[in-house]
Amino acid sequence: MKENNNYHMDVEAFRKYGKQVIDWLADYYDNIEKYPVLSQVVPGEIRNSLPDHPPAEGESFDDILKDVSDIILNGITHWQSPNFYAYFPANTSGPSILGELLSAGFGVQGMLWSTSPACTELETHVMDWLAEALQLPEKFYSNSTGGGVIEDSASSAALCALLAARERVTNTRSADFHKKMEKCTVYISSQTHSSLKKACIIAGISDDNIRYISVDKNYSMNSEELSSKIGQDRHDGFIPMFVCATVGTTSSLAVDPVLEIGDICCAEKIWLHIDAAMAGTAAVCPEYRYLLDGIELADSFSFNPHKWMFTNFDCNCFYAADKNELIKALTVNPEYLKNKYSDASEVIDYRDWQVSLGRRFRSLKLWFVIRYYGLKGIRHHIRKHIEITQQLTALIKKNTDFQVLSPVSLNLICFRHRKSNDFNKKLLDELNKSGKIFMSHTVLDGKYYIRLCVGQTNTEMSHVANAWNLIEETAESLES
Amino acid sequence: MKENNNYHMDVEAFRKYGKQVIDWLADYYDNIEKYPVLSQVVPGEIRNSLPDHPPAEGESFDDILKDVSDIILNGITHWQSPNFYAYFPANTSGPSILGELLSAGFGVQGMLWSTSPACTELETHVMDWLAEALQLPEKFYSNSTGGGVIEDSASSAALCALLAARERVTNTRSADFHKKMEKCTVYISSQTHSSLKKACIIAGISDDNIRYISVDKNYSMNSEELSSKIGQDRHDGFIPMFVCATVGTTSSLAVDPVLEIGDICCAEKIWLHIDAAMAGTAAVCPEYRYLLDGIELADSFSFNPHKWMFTNFDCNCFYAADKNELIKALTVNPEYLKNKYSDASEVIDYRDWQVSLGRRFRSLKLWFVIRYYGLKGIRHHIRKHIEITQQLTALIKKNTDFQVLSPVSLNLICFRHRKSNDFNKKLLDELNKSGKIFMSHTVLDGKYYIRLCVGQTNTEMSHVANAWNLIEETAESLES
Repeated sequence: MKENNNYHMDVEAFRKYGKQVIDWLADYYDNIEKYPVLSQVVPGEIRNSLPDHPPAEGESFDDILKDVSDIILNGITHWQSPNFYAYFPANTSGPSILGELLSAGFGVQGMLWSTSPACTELETHVMDWLAEALQLPEKFYSNSTGGGVIEDSASSAALCALLAARERVTNTRSADFHKKMEKCTVYISSQTHSSLKKACIIAGISDDNIRYISVDKNYSMNSEELSSKIGQDRHDGFIPMFVCATVGTTSSLAVDPVLEIGDICCAEKIWLHIDAAMAGTAAVCPEYRYLLDGIELADSFSFNPHKWMFTNFDCNCFYAADKNELIKALTVNPEYLKNKYSDASEVIDYRDWQVSLGRRFRSLKLWFVIRYYGLKGIRHHIRKHIEITQQLTALIKKNTDFQVLSPVSLNLICFRHRKSNDFNKKLLDELNKSGKIFMSHTVLDGKYYIRLCVGQTNTEMSHVANAWNLIEETAESLES
Repeated sequence: MKENNNYHMDVEAFRKYGKQVIDWLADYYDNIEKYPVLSQVVPGEIRNSLPDHPPAEGESFDDILKDVSDIILNGITHWQSPNFYAYFPANTSGPSILGELLSAGFGVQGMLWSTSPACTELETHVMDWLAEALQLPEKFYSNSTGGGVIEDSASSAALCALLAARERVTNTRSADFHKKMEKCTVYISSQTHSSLKKACIIAGISDDNIRYISVDKNYSMNSEELSSKIGQDRHDGFIPMFVCATVGTTSSLAVDPVLEIGDICCAEKIWLHIDAAMAGTAAVCPEYRYLLDGIELADSFSFNPHKWMFTNFDCNCFYAADKNELIKALTVNPEYLKNKYSDASEVIDYRDWQVSLGRRFRSLKLWFVIRYYGLKGIRHHIRKHIEITQQLTALIKKNTDFQVLSPVSLNLICFRHRKSNDFNKKLLDELNKSGKIFMSHTVLDGKYYIRLCVGQTNTEMSHVANAWNLIEETAESLES
């Protein structure tokens, strides 16, 4: 093993190794379809290939990069393979990767405006650009009552929304906080993402105060039940505090009736958060903007460019209609962070919009993506993914051994073989073990469904057609 | 403006632009001392240079990179300049930047072991390596009761620790949760980082239940007062739940008496969290390992390689002595994430160790840093920073116009001119406006101190000597 004892990577070494890593990644993308999509290692396999102890002496960069190829690569599940259809995508793109690289190079902290003004101002600017692209109501723009911020994930966005809602009806820092809190209730559906339940746990909403509203046959929240539960809770002395409506549920991309839910929340002055983690991106296309109908009634909204907008994780876009409600819930202001711009309230300090103090320059990658693709380019890819999904749906429907869950929304298909749940489970397992594609599953009304979500940046119809051939062949071989 | 209408960055374009960005960053580091350390822009200046609307058509990568140079750079406060001495550092290095680049390129999710086994296993492995480097007690190793995880920040680590502590004494998901919670008390000192107070707000600990323990003349927590407050609280029917001891406070790098605090917490079965955000790194050097004396009595511990270990933000290393306590506080397990390895409890699923569901492949950059430098290289840089700080202390002490806060701990100097607080404030402002150095401030016992922290990877004695000359000259010119 070649040692590196200079304790330093100087600029010329960085230039050299940096270009090696760029080449490594370019080659990786060139060859990505040759690797099994789902890593085939067993637990412990990667660790067993690594030395037990940290090196005392520095090692050469070549050796490190070689181990990425020889060891790490085996343990990668290739989320950026065009044959990845599991969960929701976490797609990325060249412009995003290079934006993240620049951000790592700058290595700035964006906790305050003053700790790197460009970090804050570019973020505000890009969030306003996206507000325009999504045709969001005026209140979500930074020059209005509200504004946008980049969070690490939809989980964090939901937590921040919940904390602001909690602050609206209780005063967290007051002595009678718990007296009020034990009366506060939260409304989600059986299809709401698990991060909402986690946010409740973190914020101290006990299970007894979470109301799970039932869903209709399309797995959308039953707004009449929501209304009646809220009424019952008021009658029983509870304080209805927070509703989460989902635009594109995780299991089946169901869309809750936001307009109806919004009317209820406005009348009751309950915080309405809209979680549009993946599907929200589709609203960049005018023909899918209807997905956000009712958003003018919401207090907060988030979607993830790191899912379906070619921007690598982490990049969640979170909008609040009243920034002061958010800040009131999350601010602390120690002496060592005081500065004249913050004191004069002339600037945005995003530390008060999130859980942590520190923050990266995440808007850079988003800016790179929006500029490199332009809105037309982004729409082009979104429309392509939806078109592919519809073509695949038609293929599946031709095979009477399979059932497709209707309606097929945007870029997600839930389907199953007509045989038992166990058969479908086995089918999915076989397919994933093949390494040729990777899909995941869900259970709806007791039925096991295979979920196929089309969202990786480079997925084309040819990939999906191959996937379908493989699915049909594998099902046949399991049947025989 | 050159348009880019192909809606795609193919592999060859990525190769080309990627190398341009590497060259751009190499040039940036070559020239970094030419830029004003603290950005000199005024609020709105960056935004005013950007187009009001997102581009409809894609733009060329050259145009985007040109705007980084022409617009963004003006709004950067150069955290990676060797003349940056403000706050705590957020230092980085070539190996870390390239590790982050690879992580962005892979674009994997590490929420479950199965979603990319290498992401989880490398993280566990590197956390064990660091446990060894820091000589942590056995219980923090992954093959013991506990284990380590990478969080985004010490804020998040503290929140997770607090939630686990809350779960230990209450059952968050039970109906009588609030009855217990209104009795739970948290103990921090007046010098504890503000993120602890924020964690309390988020977790629903009201202000009335936070006990601020006073500090001694060195700004370390008064453990006798801690003991007596806990006793009084028990007597009054409260449930003492959580203590945070700090190794290296933000204002002055004071170290709380962890051994004494640990004895109290063990006797009382109170969760002890150690926040060693910056100073923890020093314990990699055997001669500074004493800083962590008493850690064997702690339930959790965190430090930030993204502060002082050449690894770019975000990279907080968080250890829990009992992983099950952490998981119990943070787990939710929806159908769509179930898989055979998780179900068999054969693997670690780090989503249950943090607030969010999604997570990046952050161990890659840390692995790159540890391997490229080796422990010897890391120690070399830490020792160099501490040595420089001691040399600077000697310089300042020679000038009788200035006072240095004693003792000077590790790499942070708090000093002030003997004149008024206003004079010091003006002095700091003048120095930062010069663009030649950037420092921050704190207030201790009513006195305004300038804080100078030596921690950027490339800071040498020559930089610090120049800084001191500038400080002396500026003070003289302000006096005259």
